[in-house]
Amino acid sequence: MAGSLETIFNPKSVAIVGASEVPGKAGERRTRSLLQGGFQGRVFPINPKRDRIFGLPAYPSVAEVPEEVDLVMIVIPPRFIPEAVAQSVQKGAKGIVIITAGLGETGEEGKRIEAEILRIASEGGARVIGPNCSGLFSASAKMNLLGVPPIKPGPFSILAQSGNIIDSLTHYGRLRGVGFSKIISAGNAIGLQFHEYIEYLGEDPDTRVILLYLEGIKEGGRLVEVARQVSQRKPIVAIKVGRTKAGARAAASHTGALAGDDQVVDAALRQAGVIRVANVDELFDVGLCFAGMPLPKGRRVAIFSEGGGDNSIAADNAERAGLEVPLLPPEAQEKIEPHLLQGMPAHNPIDYGGTAEENPEVIVRVVEALMEEETVDCLYMTGFFGGFKEIIAPHVAELEEKAARELVRLVREAGKPLVVHTSFANEPIKALEILREGGIFVTPSSERAAQGLAQMVRFFLRREELKEARPVEVTGVDSERARKIIEGVKASGRRNLLETEARELLEVYGVKMPPAVLAESPEEAAEAASVMGFPVVLKVVSP
Amino acid sequence: MAGSLETIFNPKSVAIVGASEVPGKAGERRTRSLLQGGFQGRVFPINPKRDRIFGLPAYPSVAEVPEEVDLVMIVIPPRFIPEAVAQSVQKGAKGIVIITAGLGETGEEGKRIEAEILRIASEGGARVIGPNCSGLFSASAKMNLLGVPPIKPGPFSILAQSGNIIDSLTHYGRLRGVGFSKIISAGNAIGLQFHEYIEYLGEDPDTRVILLYLEGIKEGGRLVEVARQVSQRKPIVAIKVGRTKAGARAAASHTGALAGDDQVVDAALRQAGVIRVANVDELFDVGLCFAGMPLPKGRRVAIFSEGGGDNSIAADNAERAGLEVPLLPPEAQEKIEPHLLQGMPAHNPIDYGGTAEENPEVIVRVVEALMEEETVDCLYMTGFFGGFKEIIAPHVAELEEKAARELVRLVREAGKPLVVHTSFANEPIKALEILREGGIFVTPSSERAAQGLAQMVRFFLRREELKEARPVEVTGVDSERARKIIEGVKASGRRNLLETEARELLEVYGVKMPPAVLAESPEEAAEAASVMGFPVVLKVVSP
Repeated sequence: MAGSLETIFNPKSVAIVGASEVPGKAGERRTRSLLQGGFQGRVFPINPKRDRIFGLPAYPSVAEVPEEVDLVMIVIPPRFIPEAVAQSVQKGAKGIVIITAGLGETGEEGKRIEAEILRIASEGGARVIGPNCSGLFSASAKMNLLGVPPIKPGPFSILAQSGNIIDSLTHYGRLRGVGFSKIISAGNAIGLQFHEYIEYLGEDPDTRVILLYLEGIKEGGRLVEVARQVSQRKPIVAIKVGRTKAGARAAASHTGALAGDDQVVDAALRQAGVIRVANVDELFDVGLCFAGMPLPKGRRVAIFSEGGGDNSIAADNAERAGLEVPLLPPEAQEKIEPHLLQGMPAHNPIDYGGTAEENPEVIVRVVEALMEEETVDCLYMTGFFGGFKEIIAPHVAELEEKAARELVRLVREAGKPLVVHTSFANEPIKALEILREGGIFVTPSSERAAQGLAQMVRFFLRREELKEARPVEVTGVDSERARKIIEGVKASGRRNLLETEARELLEVYGVKMPPAVLAESPEEAAEAASVMGFPVVLKVVSP
Repeated sequence: MAGSLETIFNPKSVAIVGASEVPGKAGERRTRSLLQGGFQGRVFPINPKRDRIFGLPAYPSVAEVPEEVDLVMIVIPPRFIPEAVAQSVQKGAKGIVIITAGLGETGEEGKRIEAEILRIASEGGARVIGPNCSGLFSASAKMNLLGVPPIKPGPFSILAQSGNIIDSLTHYGRLRGVGFSKIISAGNAIGLQFHEYIEYLGEDPDTRVILLYLEGIKEGGRLVEVARQVSQRKPIVAIKVGRTKAGARAAASHTGALAGDDQVVDAALRQAGVIRVANVDELFDVGLCFAGMPLPKGRRVAIFSEGGGDNSIAADNAERAGLEVPLLPPEAQEKIEPHLLQGMPAHNPIDYGGTAEENPEVIVRVVEALMEEETVDCLYMTGFFGGFKEIIAPHVAELEEKAARELVRLVREAGKPLVVHTSFANEPIKALEILREGGIFVTPSSERAAQGLAQMVRFFLRREELKEARPVEVTGVDSERARKIIEGVKASGRRNLLETEARELLEVYGVKMPPAVLAESPEEAAEAASVMGFPVVLKVVSP
């Protein structure tokens, strides 16, 4: 299945139905971003009112393109889409990306058009991306069909329903200087489903971390199954909105998705080994942690700073995030103490205030000791690193840069992650650039540093668990009986089970249930109880 | 009491014991920051090895300064401090700021020196700030005794134990372009206590928001009492570390503070009307919200964006933060719908995607309708505001700036706060500058936008509650009996109460307790139970 996506992400030719030169139009932005991005294949703008678009010959319809087309992007009003899709499959298109909104998410008429699109595409052997999506990006094809400024190639891939979330993430990526392999806006996902994209990204050698943004979940079972396999190889980090009533309402009016019961979603993501985060910042933070650093093998963190206040906050943050801040054994403390001022704590958190600011080499020595220390799984620096030059004197900059290089080396050699909170994180400081380029997570927020580490720990532990876990095998199921229960429910026009039906269904699948009898009068209840023996519980069954 | 601090924050002369020209030294940094800051009074560097420091005549000791000195800052080793303090009070000093660390927080000898310092100062009529602190800043005196780069005057005052937290906050302030009225590093706080500083800041006309960083709490009762009064006039926002075991340990080795039971701290802060936040980012975010905007009168928030995905995330964030996202009444929706694309939701969250990006005026119209709407207490914009010019076309910049000015005006006129999450928040964009200068909270984090609003709501509701609340009046207390219980505990060398003692003490203060008897054998217990009547509960009492 994943193989068939190869042409979609690395097409030899792209047609854009609704290409335009009018600044700001969806078709204009995407034609421009495709051309600016350096796409190597052929590009066919489709627009019946223009001869040329951005210097390329334009065609009145896909049918009139003089050769085969691998991928077609469609940005025209709903009623014209089925015909464009029909022409696209005629031209041999393997993928059809539909940007247009106002389809299934707005009502019955839109749903009808979606069904027609899907039928035509399927019959013609093409897969549909969208509609109501913002497009695709593929670094390997230099293909930016998102209508956003140039995107740097890099280790992240994004899969999201919402187009504007994709804009947010590519924008953050640009600001933080990180890059992407594939970016997919799935939109209403009437054709290609999330689990198919995830399977493909799982195979993509350029993708190191998969970032998901979910509104509703369709084909949940398949999603969990695929994600569970993929997450053994690479981390999948997800935002799933609709945790709250208002969030679910917003998601429903956005892509028509049913957010589902959040507890079910949570359990499903956990089973799939997917890391769930609360918001875009965290999605990105956690992604950066995974992309750049080795996984911690446990939850014991060492905290260090030139400031006791920052240490206190970090220790609180770490424990609240689910990490442990153990006292270091005396031998470890003895290795660290010579680098600290007399009387400063080396037990963890470690305070190198008064020495490290002028001589950042101290930090390297402390980190070296911690990397060797068996009782420490991960490291968390907090305070002002990178800003010592401003606090102390300009000559310290060079010492900080040297220390940064050493820290990068130590993380790689020892295989333990290091996160860095510094108040100077948002400033253009070379020492911090060195850390970031070396894969170390640097953040202006102490809390986010702790959360990043904690998510890495959780992923590692969960992955170990899932390695061992096997699905429960269910044998000897009386499928006929199960089918009858469900048919009975449907026949009475319901979509939910009565308690008695749910009990029976669970029993069919081998789940042990305490004995129960459906009584239809007080007398029947009394009689049933005297047969079953006391104590009994009485429940109301009502459709 | 607060009056006596006036001289400390607005001294006519300052002596620095331990002044230096050696770059990076604590005494050098503070002498330099005082002179660079434009302090208008007289400055006397004290250093027995130098004739001049930074061009000023230096004196071998405070005693040799040829005139009276209002404020003395001390940056010399512990054993020399008592003599310097004695000389300072001789010179009429009203305040003595002791930067030196290594005193009470490190052990008995340090505690002894602290006691001596305090005795000499008290006898001489001077108040002590610190030791183990980083100094003071006072905008009204242009006095920067913190050894940090220039600080802009502004509406915040900071009171913290930790010096490096103060460095963080002043640094953040600089980055975000906001300013401060007073900054106080209380350190070990052997002399001036937190509640005295808070009382002073409560009276300070230039302080609009008080930011607190607490490690331990001394004189908790006084602190609550003063804070409760002050928070009726201005918000007090606090970080209290030591929420977790590791955090408490870090705080203890930092300023020797006992963090105390966190639930007690939490209850005390709530009683005092103090807003508790989790970390430095939030402290600042919440501070900015309070400093710039009117308070919301309830928890009902309207959310709007050009992106449905951002809306979904925002709605989740809002409900999780404790806000409500109500459906707007039909009349309100009808006012908003004309500004949206056909079929886009106006019920809340509101999605103006496809119209506002090219024409930001749409946002102003939507906000106008929401400001008029009775069922909305506060507003929350999310998405890409400020970046439309980059997404659409450069000419949109001007329209965004115009919209920003209108939004500022609407917030002021309607008296409802507006928080803005935008992915472009960290970029130098004029429209966002206009919002910030107008007091609107702009943040790159959707979650932090929600938290900021939620904290404002909580403060408003809590303040209303506290207005009504009266302390419980306790009459008819048998103080003699209470005293005897406590004396009994002390006499047996304990610092905690047995359950029986606690029960008795509560009863003395009028708290009703179920009957209880202390039994010293199984037989006594059985006898007591038969007298009291069943059911009974048996508990172990053990010192």
